[in-house]
Amino acid sequence: MFAVTILGNNSAVPAFDRHPTSQVVTMDGHNFLVDCGEGTQIQMINYKIRRSKISHILISHLHGDHYFGLIGLINSFGLLSHQQDLHVFGPSPLQQIIELQLSVANTILPFKLIFHTINQEGVLLDEEKFRVRCFRTNHRIECYGFHFEEKKKPRRINPDNAKRFEVPSSFYERLQNGEDYTQKNGTVVKNEWVTDPGTKPKSYAYCADTKYDETLIPHIEGADMIYHETTYLDNLRERADFRFHSTTKQAALLAKKAGVKKLLIGHFSSKYDTLEQFEAEAREVFPDTELAIEGVAYTI
Amino acid sequence: MFAVTILGNNSAVPAFDRHPTSQVVTMDGHNFLVDCGEGTQIQMINYKIRRSKISHILISHLHGDHYFGLIGLINSFGLLSHQQDLHVFGPSPLQQIIELQLSVANTILPFKLIFHTINQEGVLLDEEKFRVRCFRTNHRIECYGFHFEEKKKPRRINPDNAKRFEVPSSFYERLQNGEDYTQKNGTVVKNEWVTDPGTKPKSYAYCADTKYDETLIPHIEGADMIYHETTYLDNLRERADFRFHSTTKQAALLAKKAGVKKLLIGHFSSKYDTLEQFEAEAREVFPDTELAIEGVAYTI
Repeated sequence: MFAVTILGNNSAVPAFDRHPTSQVVTMDGHNFLVDCGEGTQIQMINYKIRRSKISHILISHLHGDHYFGLIGLINSFGLLSHQQDLHVFGPSPLQQIIELQLSVANTILPFKLIFHTINQEGVLLDEEKFRVRCFRTNHRIECYGFHFEEKKKPRRINPDNAKRFEVPSSFYERLQNGEDYTQKNGTVVKNEWVTDPGTKPKSYAYCADTKYDETLIPHIEGADMIYHETTYLDNLRERADFRFHSTTKQAALLAKKAGVKKLLIGHFSSKYDTLEQFEAEAREVFPDTELAIEGVAYTI
Repeated sequence: MFAVTILGNNSAVPAFDRHPTSQVVTMDGHNFLVDCGEGTQIQMINYKIRRSKISHILISHLHGDHYFGLIGLINSFGLLSHQQDLHVFGPSPLQQIIELQLSVANTILPFKLIFHTINQEGVLLDEEKFRVRCFRTNHRIECYGFHFEEKKKPRRINPDNAKRFEVPSSFYERLQNGEDYTQKNGTVVKNEWVTDPGTKPKSYAYCADTKYDETLIPHIEGADMIYHETTYLDNLRERADFRFHSTTKQAALLAKKAGVKKLLIGHFSSKYDTLEQFEAEAREVFPDTELAIEGVAYTI
């Protein structure tokens, strides 16, 4: 499963039972917590996200609504006797902030907490089946988005054909990687005779907080889904620009220009008590838009 | 009104819809926020505590369940254009923790944030009508309880009698302070002929996190209400002791020995999904015990 579950969809100040930014990206059996506003651990309880399944936490930037819940979550991991390593990626002062708070409480964590400082665009994780990259967004302070992509899926073997062409099962892994097989008599069995293409690898990009900025496009182009903030409705474009945020139609325009398949919008200002108009405005420009609703898992 | 409203009654890890420690003490029109676990600002919204009415925040100690919500609350005060000065009392590294987090976000607060470092027992606030003191409790790290007391209330003038004894109204303030009045002819009008006693001043003590410790008694003796933690039921006395916490019967015994009128218990361990037994056990020792329930205001 490749999906994103929303834990918080509101901007800076909690309001109308909406919480600050946090989401869980599930990919290849891993759970990545992306941003961690205050109360994220409580939202995880509310929405039955098993805290023990989180091994990586990515923090986009150091505005409080994106990370004030991190110290509480780490602390609870400690109290709950979490064992596995916890990798935290974020801008540089984050490590100091967390370590200071652990030290004043004389907290000794029962697991290894590994900080990875983000200070430039690039690859954060490169595993056999997926890759996670970060890219700069255009915000008031240093801020990064995250791009999650599955790697090319292996070709699927057609067992009947493979048998018919006398390919031994010891060669199957090489078949999955696209190689041809040469029989003992020298006959070449073309890969496509005995395999079908693997499913297309998918990708998801989290664009964090940002003003409208087309330099993001190369980083998110063609994604199956992106999350883009829409702090304001489109009549507040000037305010959005001034505060390094985006409006509904700006997010939708970026999604359109980047040729993505689906747009998820969130980070709604506490000015707004209802969200219908966000959806309506964004869909005028990009019909495949969904509101990021807390507790909902969106399949990528 | 002199009352305490519970915002969080759970210990370290949030569970069963109970939140980490926080309460609001209302006295003489002032609201004192006492401890501020993660999510306190959300609890304030839930229970309609006007954030703008908070002018003083007291932090007992630097375990996360007592202060991780502070930075978020201060940040929201900033975003909500809070104007009045905010006084924060707490152990020394608190200021550094908060200022570091404000500085990495380039946050300029629109109000004056004044830190008062607590490093010894004594008077924190001494106003015309009340006094707030702090006292040490016995916990794993430096920890303070807080004692709120009204000052002696002025005597109430009996206007009919005052007129009958020809006391001029310009002397009323001195009557309220207990002075006698001497008429022009030298006759002394005894204060008690023209006034009634003021209502008795009340007091409330918050005993923070602590193991059972009778050295607390002089600080809380005779209080109208105390809050004392009961992290565990009484069968876990050893664990309580080891972790510098208290059980139901220990809290009740301290309340009894200190001759207080009412005991409020909280800081329940996340082990327990229900709380009835906490109340029952404490009442065996001290009948005037109440569970600290989130959202409830207890009049002192």
